[in-house]
Amino acid sequence: MPIGIFDSGIGGLTVLRQVHQLMPEEDLIYLGDTARVPYGNKSPATVVRFACEDTQFLLRQKVKAVIVACNTASAWALNDLQRRYQVPIFGVILPAAAAALEVSRNQRIGVIGTYATVRSQAYSRAVLARCDTAQVFTCACPLLVPLVEEGWLDHPATHQILREYLRPLLRRRIDTLVLGCTHYPLLRPALQKVVGPKVVLVDSAESCARFVRERLEVLGLRRTDRRRRGRLELFVTDEVARFGELAAHFLGQKAGPATLVELKPLA
Amino acid sequence: MPIGIFDSGIGGLTVLRQVHQLMPEEDLIYLGDTARVPYGNKSPATVVRFACEDTQFLLRQKVKAVIVACNTASAWALNDLQRRYQVPIFGVILPAAAAALEVSRNQRIGVIGTYATVRSQAYSRAVLARCDTAQVFTCACPLLVPLVEEGWLDHPATHQILREYLRPLLRRRIDTLVLGCTHYPLLRPALQKVVGPKVVLVDSAESCARFVRERLEVLGLRRTDRRRRGRLELFVTDEVARFGELAAHFLGQKAGPATLVELKPLA
Repeated sequence: MPIGIFDSGIGGLTVLRQVHQLMPEEDLIYLGDTARVPYGNKSPATVVRFACEDTQFLLRQKVKAVIVACNTASAWALNDLQRRYQVPIFGVILPAAAAALEVSRNQRIGVIGTYATVRSQAYSRAVLARCDTAQVFTCACPLLVPLVEEGWLDHPATHQILREYLRPLLRRRIDTLVLGCTHYPLLRPALQKVVGPKVVLVDSAESCARFVRERLEVLGLRRTDRRRRGRLELFVTDEVARFGELAAHFLGQKAGPATLVELKPLA
Repeated sequence: MPIGIFDSGIGGLTVLRQVHQLMPEEDLIYLGDTARVPYGNKSPATVVRFACEDTQFLLRQKVKAVIVACNTASAWALNDLQRRYQVPIFGVILPAAAAALEVSRNQRIGVIGTYATVRSQAYSRAVLARCDTAQVFTCACPLLVPLVEEGWLDHPATHQILREYLRPLLRRRIDTLVLGCTHYPLLRPALQKVVGPKVVLVDSAESCARFVRERLEVLGLRRTDRRRRGRLELFVTDEVARFGELAAHFLGQKAGPATLVELKPLA
């Protein structure tokens, strides 16, 4: 049975990419809710409803586990999803918080994300639950997703905007910065330039993939035929112009065509 | 009976504002599809479906006419809506195209808008249908909506991005620039600085309100009791954080609370 992964759009392909690299033998099914993207500026109640509809679609595809690749949906909907559905469901926030605590020396951790993610305080709670002497400083960066989708990854305007967003965090002497949105790994070089070489960037996609592999091992849900190459299947709720081009950016390899689907509203 | 106005989000409040100023005696009902905002990066088929659902909601409120305040929805869905429904339905594109031709002296007209609006070529068609010697130069500016929503109306990064987007249009020696998105009027001062004093900015909200007033007069659909003050009623499909603050920006006056509604899917 495949692993299901969903995101508000195509940013979650950065998670698919990491999962595929770590567990190439697993079949993966990806759903991008491109008709309603983005989630990051929507209300908690709406994010929960959308996340349930996404999960139900994946469950109908008979997945053995679900990864919520979207930080906003992880922040607001993970508990609801875990209560509501029987399969193991993983988010991106706990793994990234744990990874940040591992690398931080001064326990001063910065987190950037959407408005909704920052407002949820999910990262602060996840960090403090593990280490109550740590300090978490968050900053909503709503312009970064559009900059990535515009392809301005190394543009002077992007650097200027990053400097403005990150200044308050740097003033707090963070030594670790969590990229709390699936789009941000594409800005890694620009971000590293702005924060300087001493601040470690933690990619929520990467840490999530490692976490999921561990959990699936423990649960006995890994495939044992490690020499096969798993299938990738992509679904979207709206046709995306330049899908191939954008998907290749996020996925780091050529992507097959995505199938257009309509999601059933929650009963 | 009220006039219905819909938009993908709250940007269409700039249209509501102009309509209310020109026809203060009319009752106005506004629907912002904030659960699925933005439309500008969605496919034509999805934009048409969303626009039909928005219109059906307004028709259930017994409106006498519908204004499609969203440029993207006007570009892709207006013909479908007019075929499908019985009340008069107006878009923002024809009025803005006519207004641009009125003010342009060299008939070289620039248009900025979302990807979907630019891709539709609706502005080019509307201008050329009236004047086949005119030339229309378009440019998609996907970063401007997020900049407006972030409130960076006069930020150095905004100026830098505007200069970059507008350079190709200015090179074409346009003397008129159509603001082909309901968010852009808030950038008017920054835009005017970048294009210089000789380029005239045409606001699609303003020209639309004048057009609708004329058409309603002709159709005998105007209220005759001109001394009353019409009601404004606001509906949204998702709660908007900072709604009051943002709405006041767009509307130019304090807004009452918006009612949260769920749209029925198209049969």
